[in-house]
Order: sequence, then C-alpha cells, then structure tokens
Amino acid sequence: MLEKLDRIPTRQDIVETQELIFEFLHYTPVMTSESLNDISGAELFFKCENFQKIGAFKMRGAASAAVRLTEAELERGLATHSSGNHAQAVARAARLLGVPAYIVMPENAPATKIAATEGYGANIIFCAATIEAREKTLEEVVRQTGATFIHPYDDYNVIAGQATCARELLQDVEELDTIIAPVGGGGLLSGTALSTRYWSPSTKVIGAEPAAVDDAWRSLQSGQIETNATTDTIADGLRTNLGEKTFGIIQMHVDDIITVSEAAIIEAMRLVWERMKIIIEPSCAVPLAAVLQNRERFEAEKVGIILTGGNVDLSKLPF
Amino acid sequence: MLEKLDRIPTRQDIVETQELIFEFLHYTPVMTSESLNDISGAELFFKCENFQKIGAFKMRGAASAAVRLTEAELERGLATHSSGNHAQAVARAARLLGVPAYIVMPENAPATKIAATEGYGANIIFCAATIEAREKTLEEVVRQTGATFIHPYDDYNVIAGQATCARELLQDVEELDTIIAPVGGGGLLSGTALSTRYWSPSTKVIGAEPAAVDDAWRSLQSGQIETNATTDTIADGLRTNLGEKTFGIIQMHVDDIITVSEAAIIEAMRLVWERMKIIIEPSCAVPLAAVLQNRERFEAEKVGIILTGGNVDLSKLPF
Repeated sequence: MLEKLDRIPTRQDIVETQELIFEFLHYTPVMTSESLNDISGAELFFKCENFQKIGAFKMRGAASAAVRLTEAELERGLATHSSGNHAQAVARAARLLGVPAYIVMPENAPATKIAATEGYGANIIFCAATIEAREKTLEEVVRQTGATFIHPYDDYNVIAGQATCARELLQDVEELDTIIAPVGGGGLLSGTALSTRYWSPSTKVIGAEPAAVDDAWRSLQSGQIETNATTDTIADGLRTNLGEKTFGIIQMHVDDIITVSEAAIIEAMRLVWERMKIIIEPSCAVPLAAVLQNRERFEAEKVGIILTGGNVDLSKLPF
Repeated sequence: MLEKLDRIPTRQDIVETQELIFEFLHYTPVMTSESLNDISGAELFFKCENFQKIGAFKMRGAASAAVRLTEAELERGLATHSSGNHAQAVARAARLLGVPAYIVMPENAPATKIAATEGYGANIIFCAATIEAREKTLEEVVRQTGATFIHPYDDYNVIAGQATCARELLQDVEELDTIIAPVGGGGLLSGTALSTRYWSPSTKVIGAEPAAVDDAWRSLQSGQIETNATTDTIADGLRTNLGEKTFGIIQMHVDDIITVSEAAIIEAMRLVWERMKIIIEPSCAVPLAAVLQNRERFEAEKVGIILTGGNVDLSKLPF
C-alpha cells in the first residue's frame, strides 16, 4: 500500500501509482487517422480513454485514491457525489475491492447513468439537484457510514491516477510537440501537465475548454479560480470549475488554455465518429476542435490528444 | 505480380495475396469486451474491419483483384458498379496504383457515398436505379475505356482478398470454436470459410443474415441460388444474392447460416456502440445478433466475429 498524498505527486509517485492501479485498468491504445491528419495539417495521436474501463479515464483517479486507503478505511467503503463517469469509477473500484460504495446523485440524473452505477453494485442516495443538497447529503452519508469521500478531481491521489494516462501516451509516442487535454475540474489536465513535465519537458501542455464555460481560461488570466455564470455547453464533463489543488498545478505547468465554440465541438465529434469509427463524448472532442480552429498554430506538429471517454446517450446525439 | 485466379483460392494463394496487398491495408485489431462476454455467455473476439482503410473489409478484395492485373490492363483503369464500400475500395486501389477508376452509381445514391468515392479521385457515372441500367451502363463504360470490371464478390481474386481477414483473425486468436461472418453476396463468407478450413479446420464457420433477406439460408436448403422478393432490411450491405463462385464455396465449407430479426440487429448494433465504443454498420451487427439469439448454442465457446465496416450515415441512425 502507498501513503496517501498530501502534496503534488512526484515522478516516483506517478510510477508507483501506475504499477498499483494496473489491474484496475485497460492499457488503452493510441490511434492515428490519416484522414484527420490531412484535415488538421498536424500529426495527431489519440490516447483512447473511451476504451478505458467504465468508458472513461476517471477509472484511473478513483483507483489511485482507493488503493491508498487502509484496510479499516476500505471496510467502511467509498463515497462520492457524481452523476457521471466518476460515479461509475468509484462504484467499480469498490466492487473490485469488495467494499461498499455510496454514490450521491441528483434525483434528475439520467436513468442510464443510474442503471450503470447500480450495475456495479453501488448504493445510490438521491438528493435534490442543487450543489448544496448534494454536499449536505454526501456529508450525512459519510457521517453515517464512515465511508471515505473520493473527490472527483481536487485530490492529489486522484491527480496521480489521472497522470498515468499522459504517462502511457508519452511511453508510446516519442517527441510530441504538444499534448492537449480537456479541462473541467482540472484533474486530468493537472495530471497530464505533471507527467509531461517529468517525462517530456519540452512538450507543450495545453488545456481545451468550451468558450461557453471558459472559467479555466479566465482563471489563468486573473490568477484566481473563476466560475461560470451559466453552464450551457454540450460538453457536459467540462462544466465544473477548477479546484485549489488542480489550479495550483495548472498555473505552474500548463502553457495555455484554448477555448472553442459549441459548433466546433460538434463538428470535431462528428469527424472522430465518421473518420475514426470510434465513439467519443462531446467533452473529448474539445481538444480536436482546438486543433482544427488553430490550424496554423499546430501545422506539422506532433500533437497528442487525450480522448477522455465514450459514455454517450445514443438517443440524444447532436447530429 | 500474381496470376489471376480462375479457381478456388488455395492456401498458398491466400498467403501470397496477404503479402501482396499488405501495403493497401491496415492490419486491423481484434477487440474483446468483458461486458459483451457477460451478456452473451460466450468469449467473443471481434475482428475490427470497421478500422480498415475506407472503413470496411472491401478494401481487401479490391486490392487483391487490382494487383493481379497486367501493366497494360492497369493503365486502362478499374471499373465497377456500387454505391457502397466496394466503390470506395476500387477507387482507393486505383488511386494508390495511379490509374483511373470508373464507378457506376445509381442516381439516387446517398450524397455522402458519392462524395467519399469522388474524394479518391474516381470518375462517377450515374445511371437509373435499376439492375438493368446499372449493368448496361457498366458494360458501356468498359467498352469505351477498356477498364477492367472488378466484381464486388463473385470473383476468385476478390474472394482471395477477403480471405485474408479471417486469416489474420486466426493468426491472432488460437482455437476459436466458431467464426461468424455476415453474408450478402458471399465474398467475405466464402473467403472466411476457405481460410478457416486451411488454418483451423476444426473451427465451425457460420454465416449470419437478416431473416428479411434469407436468400443464403434458402440457397443452402434448396441447393441453388435463391433470391429475395423484397430487400427491406436495415443491413444494407446484405441485400445482395450469392454468386455462382461464392455459393460453391459456401455449400462446401460453411456449416450453417443463422437468420436474425431486424430488432435483434438494431439491439446488437446498439450494444456494440455502447459497450465497445466503436462505430459499426448495421450489417456488422448481424453476427452478434446471431450469437445473442442463440445463447445456449454458443455458451462458453470462443467465437470470432468479423465486424465488416463502420460507414454509417450519422444523420440516419436507428436509435
């Protein structure tokens, strides 16, 4: 068992995490597409976390946090609030470890997400669809059960897990000029930035987010965590704001944030579906949209793109 | 250059074909899915021809026929009639060989298919949407240009190319109990049957087709090539009837044909999209539907499934 991290993960922390969570994960492939290279003018390498267990990179962070708990902590179980991929990741980690999971979900969560999380044997606790209700309900669950709360992103243990994704990409593809990850709460982007600084320091690290929720871009400008007045974007995984820990790492190690329009996100998503024949969530299409909207900037570069997940409601497609 | 084949391809023919067409192709991956194994009760191995060049296995047969032409024949170009994947395959083979392609298409062909084929630099010749007009127009094109007609399936050179797909699957996965391929004109199924007999003779070979166009099943029963009164199935790649050459091989080497309902096809397609996060055409979903509808028959078997292609019109999905 590893110590819980209360500091920015080091190179050694990430290596150890990679070894420890290996059995919870797929080693996901890196795909390329001649057709998308032609369209973008860049040489693109897609790290396919849509093929990851539970269909998203979130499995990495949840596993990384879970395996650091003591036996006594584990027995009391894992808890979180999420209606998305993090819920399934925590539920699956708990199932593999043979311990209970308690997932707080808003009562208006999509039936498919509820079913998927229940499919991993988790206990679902519903609450009103407000941030306040969610936090209060989670607190109550933790108080009653003694379960450990696994934060979706603002936790160095989770960040160390997400960092293993870029680590694998850098192991598989040498001399990338740029790595782009989408940014919501910043867990993936901060982990990506750490692994890139440790193993490929000359590679630029860029975050991509919808212009409609450009809080990360504004946060880098202002030097403090900004919020969004509205969260009206198709990229539902990226509506969250940064946390203290993720923001600190992003400020230090991320070169730039690029924002993209909703139309560009849908177009990039469609291109990946049509040309690469793989299913990605709208949130994953944001980095490719950033490349396509800035053709000259990435011309002839080797660009690594993290495709974060593939959990899409097929009955609600944007095309 | 290899000789043109005027007999059933031998083991050696298929090996030579594989070497010769290698540069036209992707070596496609074999994917597995714990989730679909759970649902089916079998151990499934999916040969992902949806990731093949032009998005379908048809690239194999077209390349195999093209590379056997003489210099003089090649100079005059390649011709075919098709509004589907075979059109793109012939067009791409011609482009890579630096020779003209003439593709006869019905005037009501989908705009996306026309654009994709034009994208490979082919000359498109439109005709009325009847079999008679199509054949007459093709004849005229061949007469005027001297181009060589590449049949979509009833050609031993094409069959030798399609056979390389199962050959790769058998190289990558040992001791399959069963291989299932969809059957339309029978090019893929007859090639699959040959490779399986040559390299894994104890593996059963099964064809799968929509119940709505069960001509292959009826042909095996009656001992002669049957046709369909209507072709009303979502599996648009499987509406064709068998040819003399493909039927001969199928009679000899295919163990069974399984027919499936339209609802089962759509359900299997949806499962692959949702669980495997990859895009497949309705035609590809037919073998999985056959497994799911016959759970006891395939229970605990190792089953190879050829996913034939991923060219789908995203604006016309069945879910």
